[in-house]
Amino acid sequence: MRLPEGFTAGAAASGIKPSGRPDLALVRIEPQADWAYVATTNRAAAPCVLRGRELFAGGGGLRALAVNSGNANCATGAEGVRDDRRFAELAAARLGLEPEEVLTASTGVIGVPLPVAKIETRIDAIELGRDLEAFAEAILTTDTRVKLSERSLPGGARVVGVAKGSGMIHPNMATMLAYLFTDAAVDAGELRGRWPGIVQATFNQVTVDGDTSTNDMAVLFASGRAGPVPDGAFWEAVHAVARDLARQIARDGEGAEKLITVRVRGAASEAEARGAARAVAASALWKAAVHGNDPNWGRILVALGYSGARFDPGRVTIRLQGTTIYEGGAVPFNGVALSQAMQAEEVVVDVELAAGGGAGEAWGCDLTEGYVKINAEYTT
Amino acid sequence: MRLPEGFTAGAAASGIKPSGRPDLALVRIEPQADWAYVATTNRAAAPCVLRGRELFAGGGGLRALAVNSGNANCATGAEGVRDDRRFAELAAARLGLEPEEVLTASTGVIGVPLPVAKIETRIDAIELGRDLEAFAEAILTTDTRVKLSERSLPGGARVVGVAKGSGMIHPNMATMLAYLFTDAAVDAGELRGRWPGIVQATFNQVTVDGDTSTNDMAVLFASGRAGPVPDGAFWEAVHAVARDLARQIARDGEGAEKLITVRVRGAASEAEARGAARAVAASALWKAAVHGNDPNWGRILVALGYSGARFDPGRVTIRLQGTTIYEGGAVPFNGVALSQAMQAEEVVVDVELAAGGGAGEAWGCDLTEGYVKINAEYTT
Repeated sequence: MRLPEGFTAGAAASGIKPSGRPDLALVRIEPQADWAYVATTNRAAAPCVLRGRELFAGGGGLRALAVNSGNANCATGAEGVRDDRRFAELAAARLGLEPEEVLTASTGVIGVPLPVAKIETRIDAIELGRDLEAFAEAILTTDTRVKLSERSLPGGARVVGVAKGSGMIHPNMATMLAYLFTDAAVDAGELRGRWPGIVQATFNQVTVDGDTSTNDMAVLFASGRAGPVPDGAFWEAVHAVARDLARQIARDGEGAEKLITVRVRGAASEAEARGAARAVAASALWKAAVHGNDPNWGRILVALGYSGARFDPGRVTIRLQGTTIYEGGAVPFNGVALSQAMQAEEVVVDVELAAGGGAGEAWGCDLTEGYVKINAEYTT
Repeated sequence: MRLPEGFTAGAAASGIKPSGRPDLALVRIEPQADWAYVATTNRAAAPCVLRGRELFAGGGGLRALAVNSGNANCATGAEGVRDDRRFAELAAARLGLEPEEVLTASTGVIGVPLPVAKIETRIDAIELGRDLEAFAEAILTTDTRVKLSERSLPGGARVVGVAKGSGMIHPNMATMLAYLFTDAAVDAGELRGRWPGIVQATFNQVTVDGDTSTNDMAVLFASGRAGPVPDGAFWEAVHAVARDLARQIARDGEGAEKLITVRVRGAASEAEARGAARAVAASALWKAAVHGNDPNWGRILVALGYSGARFDPGRVTIRLQGTTIYEGGAVPFNGVALSQAMQAEEVVVDVELAAGGGAGEAWGCDLTEGYVKINAEYTT
């Protein structure tokens, strides 16, 4: 996938990953990008997140992004803070920039010092180009596939996104990373103001195992190189790319065989709709039922019930793969046919709460023996 | 286990459970008991919970408890409300009481009408006695064992408890039920005032799969027949019985092979300590690590980080089976020996947050392939 104007990217294998797979990646931005940044609220946030927050608070533009996978540089103490700064310095030196112009990100094992010497040895080998595939590959940890998405805007500007993540956090494989790049010219204040809402409705609605990583971040970069675009079309494109990446992350959840999509309408508020959708997508019992092709509406109703959303169970309607399975109470349906319909790559739950006008959606994946195996057999 | 003075119990098999196992149980209280009641906050709460709340709000004493397993009588509409009232009437008729003197509880499959005719046929066959075992057996659903606990008080009064539960909710096998009986004479207002705090610190700190059932309740009955007891000793005994039952529920979690105990000290508040303990006990990643005997402290730190508890990761200490594995950062430990120590029936995590004086504990179980199997292969 081709990056928008103003962005080039590249990657290398530095040996941080024992497998020898690519684990070091750069994006260069010319001349610079305005940006909007949302990061994890975890108290044990990694040095790269703390540094990113500071840069973002400073209000300046960015000229590069440096990411390593295979090591989260988290819970690594004062040494970790120094290593993260050193990572920024190495990337800046490679690109002829100042360290304050480089955003860093690390993802992988927690509690192991970042092998900066390996980064130093290999960072000059990275070749930059307009193609995003090598970068997309190099930021992966336990993911089974790269995650890319793009939308074009009227006038030729584009929004291109890349992400990694396969549990909200992993076997110490901390994290979800998501980067969106656009060459549209967007007001820097608006960029900062609207990005958190998009993240809320997309990446924050993905649930694989309920754990919140120490290294998560979602960043939107705008180079402005393709000039202004209609405001509505721009945010629609950003939302579409973010949503598409969110769904790709859910589908690639650890051990997952199916994508679960939950759409809630008629909630008392947007927040309650999102919460209700997330509760269903996150329910271990519903995830296991999806794995077993069991149209067990009781588990959906129970999850809605503890989600915090206000509703009257006697007025709720639940549809599964398009078939009504609950309408204020149990309704007859063909269980065998519906179980067969659940053997699809995507299982869609539609809920009407009849409590207001709020709508929201969430994505998750089925709970499989594979998830337990991956996470029980991982050895520190 | 023998009930305290004033209580008799019994059970029968009414055919609600297709297996033909006991599924109908009564407790009679003579002459009556003051009681304290805590029930689920789930919006889809079952008729028995709605009725129990009303009775409790009425402020009167109770003279009987009637429980059925195999059917939760939940999401059964107006018919379910009528069936629950009928259940109370049948129990009252059997015991020569008024329906308003009988607390009902149903646990089992959601969305299926309660077969009241079966209850009607068999309720007269129940023989009441001082022994609690038959009752304990008859309230089980997917549990693999009965859950009983007792403590004696100075002067001869006793506190005896019984519970069921094996997921916070199950394959539509809604629920945790817990009943404590005492013959100590306790002020009715104090009973109501202090029971919620005990439930908070014990039953609400059990997490099997993160789902909150529609039928949960924890009730404390005091007949007063053995006269007054020292206040401190009484609440200590109630807490000990509740805690013991809570641990038995966690240990019997669906598919569980081990009990996980998490003890948090040094939190900014009791609530933060309890929340932090619960987050670790509930983390799917940590539960899977325990299953795999993996001393993966990163997963503990991450769960603490998103629990909402305030702390500085550089000051936290984590101990696993007594061995320090994190002390403001990674510390060396013998991973092989610790992995062996994790092959115990109980895995204990001790956390010192160094942020205040709050302490709390929580209990959970390991996440096994068995859990996924039980919940994926259940067929509606």
